[in-house]
Parts: sequence; structure tokens; C-alpha cells
Amino acid sequence: MSKIAIDIMGGDHAPYEIIKGCIMALDKCSSTLILVGDSNIINEELTKYAFDKDRIEVTHASDIITMEDSFNAVRTKKDSSMSIGLKLVHNDFAKGIISAGNSGALVAGATSIVGRLKGVKRPVIAPLLPTKTGYSLLVDGGANVDATAEYLHQFAKIASVYMKECLNVQNPKVGLVNIGTEVEKGNQLSKEAFKLLSADDTINFYGNIEAREIPSGNVDIIVCDAFVGNVILKFMEGFGNWVFSMVKTEFTRSLKTKIAGLLMKDGITNIKNKFYYNDKGGAPLLGLRGLVVKIHGNSKSTEVTGAIIQVEGFIENNLIEKISTKFN
Amino acid sequence: MSKIAIDIMGGDHAPYEIIKGCIMALDKCSSTLILVGDSNIINEELTKYAFDKDRIEVTHASDIITMEDSFNAVRTKKDSSMSIGLKLVHNDFAKGIISAGNSGALVAGATSIVGRLKGVKRPVIAPLLPTKTGYSLLVDGGANVDATAEYLHQFAKIASVYMKECLNVQNPKVGLVNIGTEVEKGNQLSKEAFKLLSADDTINFYGNIEAREIPSGNVDIIVCDAFVGNVILKFMEGFGNWVFSMVKTEFTRSLKTKIAGLLMKDGITNIKNKFYYNDKGGAPLLGLRGLVVKIHGNSKSTEVTGAIIQVEGFIENNLIEKISTKFN
Repeated sequence: MSKIAIDIMGGDHAPYEIIKGCIMALDKCSSTLILVGDSNIINEELTKYAFDKDRIEVTHASDIITMEDSFNAVRTKKDSSMSIGLKLVHNDFAKGIISAGNSGALVAGATSIVGRLKGVKRPVIAPLLPTKTGYSLLVDGGANVDATAEYLHQFAKIASVYMKECLNVQNPKVGLVNIGTEVEKGNQLSKEAFKLLSADDTINFYGNIEAREIPSGNVDIIVCDAFVGNVILKFMEGFGNWVFSMVKTEFTRSLKTKIAGLLMKDGITNIKNKFYYNDKGGAPLLGLRGLVVKIHGNSKSTEVTGAIIQVEGFIENNLIEKISTKFN
Repeated sequence: MSKIAIDIMGGDHAPYEIIKGCIMALDKCSSTLILVGDSNIINEELTKYAFDKDRIEVTHASDIITMEDSFNAVRTKKDSSMSIGLKLVHNDFAKGIISAGNSGALVAGATSIVGRLKGVKRPVIAPLLPTKTGYSLLVDGGANVDATAEYLHQFAKIASVYMKECLNVQNPKVGLVNIGTEVEKGNQLSKEAFKLLSADDTINFYGNIEAREIPSGNVDIIVCDAFVGNVILKFMEGFGNWVFSMVKTEFTRSLKTKIAGLLMKDGITNIKNKFYYNDKGGAPLLGLRGLVVKIHGNSKSTEVTGAIIQVEGFIENNLIEKISTKFN
């Protein structure tokens, strides 16, 4: 059976919630899990749980990469849980690694330690965005802030494989984020990317999409550089939180509105569930020789479990091999 | 008294709603208005209203720039209402022009016909964004998709004058949109812009802001290139509309939720008013030798009236002269 490494020391709720998520995952998957981090802490925490000892391994790491560390922390902190976990993937001791830690360090570290697939210029982070009709994949969600048109074209190819093989979307539609839908619109990057995407028959290119169209779900894959991707992801988070806080304020304004709040309890939950989903796993870093999944810094056990199941699915689907064939 | 030109033929509700907005403005301002467009249509429409004839002039324009026209339409359609309106400003027959027409054409046309202030590299579109605490000014909201750090620095200077002189914000705080708050974060453009903004003592630079912080209102001025600005504006529009449509769906799901909807009517209106404001005027195009204000393509009479009052305020505040002194 394949093995999956988990960075136990990364994230706001490390190490305890991360460990809990690993234990919870054992019932839902068949992989062996390699818990990477301070072995004293991990082994002591593991005594609190009853589980199949053959399916949990512990690999000691004496150092931790924090959120304040720079993107090249994997180089300077070679004994960190993230660095050691990435090396396990590089050496094929593990098929994949999951981390809730420092994103910049994970991208840079994964690129240098796990390595890119032949022909792939840059790996890409691919989170899901909620939409009216389900979810769309955002590439790039955070890996390359200074992108070229060639990178964006490759992201579209990689994401198309991913959506088909792992999320069962046949012939996924690719939209390029732009300031207008017309062909000639855009900045230099989007104009060049439009040309490359239009010319590629192997992807289902829908054309430009304006940011107002993103929530419609009209496309399955949303292509942009990581600066714009970051703005979309974080603005959605900040704006969504604000709208919900306004709704809360209005519902608690008077006895009348409090009654309305009670009557609308299920409805509010329905809307919240659309945005605060935690069972979809994390955002894979695609284009590498191994599986690397970033989960949100504030992930709790449920997110960890979701990501482990997700990585097991990637392994079963031979995701990396299938992406690789597109670049040969 | 000063004169203000209005492009009667631009926008979804042209010409009738634009004309109506002009007439409505007469009671609320003291300027003379120059209505630019098809004089047959305008004069016939004017017969429906009672108004002070000394304060309305009509300048004939035989052509119209449509939304489908390219950004250089002002050059190819010299007899369009937009081109003629801009020439009125250039020749000082009018102090400013308001248009609901093609944004790209307006920016390019205003730059070439009205002209930039000495020392200003590029004009900038400056719309207001709703926030928790009020409104923040977004620069650039749509003029320059391929910006340099020097442009962004100038936008911050121009916006600081505007916020102080026209919106009464003393010592306005300037935030640079970035992927992280730390100094070293960003793409090449944002890193260079950070250096220029930090080094300028004449502006109140707050530092980097992530997109999630934009709705907080922590800064008065939000600086980014027009590609990112467009993504923020349009994503807010699309995402906001989606959230409201979900709220509507939940409120109409059953008798119980319909009752909740009735009890919450004022609350929903409060939230909607935060986003669907139409009395704040339009987005000025700043850095030019004359006043140019873009109003939304779907503007009705209320928006037109708001923009006329706004431009009169700019004239009273000597906005252009005050911006100009920052570049001498």
C-alpha cells in the first residue's frame, strides 16, 4: 500500500489537530501515514488514541518552519518537518505530502526538493472556488506571482487533466480572467495567454471571463497569475465575512429580526455551507514529480482527513503520470 | 458660472435618462449644462420639461461611440458626442464632462484630447468601494492595465489630494494591494511600488494590504494596477449579486422563511443600500487638465444628477489646480 506523509508541525492548530486528522483518516482510507514532526510530541499524543499501529509511522524532525519564515526556509531549515516530509516524497518513501504550513516555503521547497515534471515550467496551486453550480478550479491560486503566458497555458493543460481525472469533469471548460470578454482586451500577459490558449486544441477554451462571471460557474477552470488569484481568493474571504457579519447584525437588531433569524436558521446554514466547506480536501500543487497538497493554515482535523482521502484518490488515479504525458 | 458638458448619447439608458438627470440637476446645482448629442432628439425631449432655458445649452453631435467600439473610437469618430464633449473641455468651453459611455474610449480620448497635467504619466480612474466604515477610493479602477511602479506611486499622490480636497478625509491612509502584508512580499510591480510609496513623506503610506482586508476600511486609498482593480470591482459585483440571489432563494423557500423575509425587510434594505448606492456620483478620471467623470453604463437619471453635483464640487474645490501643484 502507498504511504502519505503529513507535516504535523505546520498550521495554526498543529500539532494536535493534525494528528487527530490522521487518526480519523485511518478508517476512511487504506494508506499508511507517515507523521513528520517532533517525535516526542507525536508519540505522546498517539498514546491517546486506539489505532492500527501498522498504518502509522513517525519520522522525527527537530525544526519547524513558521509562517514568518521566508519562502526559502526549506533550504535554511533542513531539519524542519516540511523539509523532511518533502524529502520523503523525493526519495519515494511517500507518494505525497500534506501541509498546513507556510505556503511560500512549501511551493519553493516542493519545486526544489520534489522537482518539476519534465517539460513543466512551474508548478501551480489549484484550489476550488465555490460557484452557483458547484466548484471551479482556480489556477494559479498562489504559486507564481510573476507569470508568463506560457506558464498560464501550462496551468490550463495541467488543470484540465486534473479536473477530468480526479473531479470527473469531462472536457472541462477553461476561462481566462480578463478585464473584458472581447478578444483584444487585456494587459500584455492576458493578451498573450489568450493567443496560446486559443491555439491549443487539446483544451476546451471558453475564452475570456470577467471577474463578475467567476461565481456563475460558467467555466470549470479559471486561469490567472497568482497575484490575481490571490486577490480573488482573499477578497472573496474578506468580502464574504463582511456580508455575513452584516447579516448577523441585521438579524440581532430587534426582537422582530431575532425571530426572523430563528425562522431562517436553516437558510443561513445553507448559504454558509456553500462557502465554509472543509471536506473538499486542500489545494494540490500540480506539475511536480510527487503529490503535494496545501491545506489552509487554520485547518482542523476534518480538513486533514479530507486531504488524506484526496491524496489517496490522486494516487489511485495515477494523476502525476497522466499530467506527465501531456508534456512529452 | 462654470459650464459642465454631458455626453447624452452614452450608456444603456441614453438619451432619455441622461437628459432627465440633467434637468433634475438644475435645482441642485448652479452650473450651466451643455447637452452633447443628437440635437433633434435632445431638443424634442427637452420640450417635455419646464426648466430655466438659460442654463441648458445643446451642442450637436451626429455620431455615437458604442460599447462595441474600440478604445481609439474618439479618433475614428470625431463627430461623436463623446469626442465633441471632450473637445469642449479641451477648449475650456466646459470645465468638465460626464459620460456613461465606453470606458476605454473615454480614457484614451480624454488622455489625448483633454490632455494630462504636466508631470503626470497616466490618468487614473478612481471609483469608490463600499467598506465596513464607509468608502475607500480604488486607484486604478480601470485606466492602466499595464502599469509601472511609478504610475502606482503617482496614483497614490493624486488620490491623496482628491480624498483630502473633495471627500474631506484628512491625511488619507494609502494601502498597496499585495499578496501578503510583509515588506518583501509581492510580484515585481508591487515590490517596486512599495519602495516608492514608503519613500514618499508627502503621503500617508499604511503598507501592503491583502485583498481580504479591503472591505475593512482600514485604508482610505487602495492602490493597484487596473487589471487587479477591475478584478476587485467586478468580482465584488458578481459575488455580491450571487450572495443576494442565494439570500432571496432562502427567504422564498417556504411560508416560514417568507415570514422571516417580511420581518427582515428593513435589514435587507440596509445591506443592499451599502452596495447599490447611486448618489455618490461617478468615478473621476484624475490627472488630466480638465474634469472627466465616468458613470456606470447602466446609470439612470439619479446617477447623472449625482455626477453633475460632484463635478460642480470639484470645480469649487479647484481640484485640478491642487493636483497639479503636487507635480510641479
